[in-house]
Amino acid sequence: MKVGILGGGQLGRMLLQAAANYTVETFVLENDSNCPAAHLCHHFILGDITDYTTVYNFGKQVDALTIEIESVNVAALEQLEAEGIQIYPSPNAIKIIKNKINQKEFYSLHQIPTAPFVITNELREVFQHKHFLPAVHKVGEGGYDGRGVQIIRSEEEIELGFNQPAVLEKMIAIEKEIAIIVARNKKGETAVYTPVEMIFNPVLNILEYQIAPARITRDLLWKVEAIAIKVVQKLNSAGLFAIEFLIDQQQEIWVNETAPRVHNSGHHTIEASYCSQYDMLWRIILGYPLGNTKLICPSAMMNIIGEPNYIGKPIYEGLPEVLKIDQAFIHLYGKHTTKPGRKMGHVTLLAKDEGEILYQAHKIKQLLKVIA
Amino acid sequence: MKVGILGGGQLGRMLLQAAANYTVETFVLENDSNCPAAHLCHHFILGDITDYTTVYNFGKQVDALTIEIESVNVAALEQLEAEGIQIYPSPNAIKIIKNKINQKEFYSLHQIPTAPFVITNELREVFQHKHFLPAVHKVGEGGYDGRGVQIIRSEEEIELGFNQPAVLEKMIAIEKEIAIIVARNKKGETAVYTPVEMIFNPVLNILEYQIAPARITRDLLWKVEAIAIKVVQKLNSAGLFAIEFLIDQQQEIWVNETAPRVHNSGHHTIEASYCSQYDMLWRIILGYPLGNTKLICPSAMMNIIGEPNYIGKPIYEGLPEVLKIDQAFIHLYGKHTTKPGRKMGHVTLLAKDEGEILYQAHKIKQLLKVIA
Repeated sequence: MKVGILGGGQLGRMLLQAAANYTVETFVLENDSNCPAAHLCHHFILGDITDYTTVYNFGKQVDALTIEIESVNVAALEQLEAEGIQIYPSPNAIKIIKNKINQKEFYSLHQIPTAPFVITNELREVFQHKHFLPAVHKVGEGGYDGRGVQIIRSEEEIELGFNQPAVLEKMIAIEKEIAIIVARNKKGETAVYTPVEMIFNPVLNILEYQIAPARITRDLLWKVEAIAIKVVQKLNSAGLFAIEFLIDQQQEIWVNETAPRVHNSGHHTIEASYCSQYDMLWRIILGYPLGNTKLICPSAMMNIIGEPNYIGKPIYEGLPEVLKIDQAFIHLYGKHTTKPGRKMGHVTLLAKDEGEILYQAHKIKQLLKVIA
Repeated sequence: MKVGILGGGQLGRMLLQAAANYTVETFVLENDSNCPAAHLCHHFILGDITDYTTVYNFGKQVDALTIEIESVNVAALEQLEAEGIQIYPSPNAIKIIKNKINQKEFYSLHQIPTAPFVITNELREVFQHKHFLPAVHKVGEGGYDGRGVQIIRSEEEIELGFNQPAVLEKMIAIEKEIAIIVARNKKGETAVYTPVEMIFNPVLNILEYQIAPARITRDLLWKVEAIAIKVVQKLNSAGLFAIEFLIDQQQEIWVNETAPRVHNSGHHTIEASYCSQYDMLWRIILGYPLGNTKLICPSAMMNIIGEPNYIGKPIYEGLPEVLKIDQAFIHLYGKHTTKPGRKMGHVTLLAKDEGEILYQAHKIKQLLKVIA
């Protein structure tokens, strides 16, 4: 079977590592021939994943397509789907998800709990919704990794918002953030991974690491599983999906957003689960049975992020020290340039004991720095 | 760092899957552009690993070289080593190991226990050693995967032997076969994996699966570990080594043979160990600390072998059934042609319970057939 991946970043790289356990012939489309996935496929095609003709021509040579990023040309995917190419997830699911306005309306339509919101087409409309503040303003299209998201706490801050179609979302008093991965095959069967919990640095308010399983009550676990499955069933698409939840101080659950692809919150599944999220997506694409989502061990995962103030050829300071840690698994993405905040790799920790995991996670955060 | 691999089979494939966790630039030399490793490296070079000039030119473009098969041009490696290319294992270690006569003499020289043997240069010399029978006749150079090995039970069978330089080895009344992997870095530090035990089909006398840890006494464990480390220290080479042992009915231990590379007996380490044998070899080559050889879980590993009477494009009969097994990890090597006895993939099972593992291992053997 010939399968194409739109995008050649780290998610593509890990998909291709997993692909080599099967007999699939792989194709990658990306506009950087040094991208993390370029050398791990059978056929690398240099090109723009947002361009209709490029995506269409790329898709015509394969039996199935998947994505590792949502910012792809959906019109081309719709045409390819009409011509019989299998697409995971469906172009319709990508369309719903890649535009935050569509995504929020989708949740409302299906009574999936999500933070209350209004849609604003221009910045001045935000002034009509002062009662909504504090709120988060999110652009409909084009936001990624923190860009296109602005907190508006009070009337004075409205000017920081976006003068383009956007969602104004009531701010949730977050107690916890968790994520859950759901796989769905063409028959509509689903497999659900154990939720992970995001641990933020209380001072810097950035994600420090994530742990699996999330520390939530059994009741909450059942609720988030049920909602996650509902999201995927209503998207009505085969593929792999990561659903991010906010849990507020009243233990109410809100869907924050969904990614229709392998996801950062599933990196730990490579070592910690019987069937990794990457393996799972191949099973879906190749028409094999869904895999076992159970955890072999509790785990933690830390992204390795480019340090502030360094741009250039990466140096992984402290890497040998981290490689000495007994239960750590290192993944470097082979990116040729580091930038502040760029995801350069990740580390997964396995341990039977939660205290041990947290201790090691902190240690790794201290040790490992990507500079240039 | 630029690293070349001589050979592009499944061992190279799995090495390259592991390489993608680091930032290494990879090169593969193999005379088949459809080989399992061809598409997973940065640079694939079509060529003959036994040819001096080909190997020399291949080696000149990299910082370090490793092998995934012993049948390489050692003279070229010696020249490359003299010119400062790092080679894992050392050409001298390959020279000792790839010729069974040298290998046996090496064991004798260093008082490493190995089955008693004589060297025969022509078939007629075997007649002078009738008192040695029953024995195993093994050609010095060129044997591989069962070829070049002949059991000679009695005088009548001597004619089945080889009329070329060979080792005539006293037959050991084998109770168990085990293997142990030892890693050694450039500083001479070693890391030892838990021994695996080979389980043979009592009727067909073929390897059915292997389990880790091997079921041996603590005393025996200490002995095999000590001998395995001695073998590697005396080879005086950095790299990864698999040492195969025979244990006889008196619980005596005999080194059967050594492979100076990642090995079939270490496949299970991908999922069952914190640091897989493949990861470990990269750590050695890249100058990183040795990894953690501990088992996460007991495991079993079965090779997926081409069925008798089928040659051609492989069909993996029963694969979906095997993919439903909760603790099974499937690895297919992507070989374009199956042949009787050819290694087409493997399955690793993880389980806390040995009984469960054996039950599943038998089930997989029944289910999965590679036909054409």
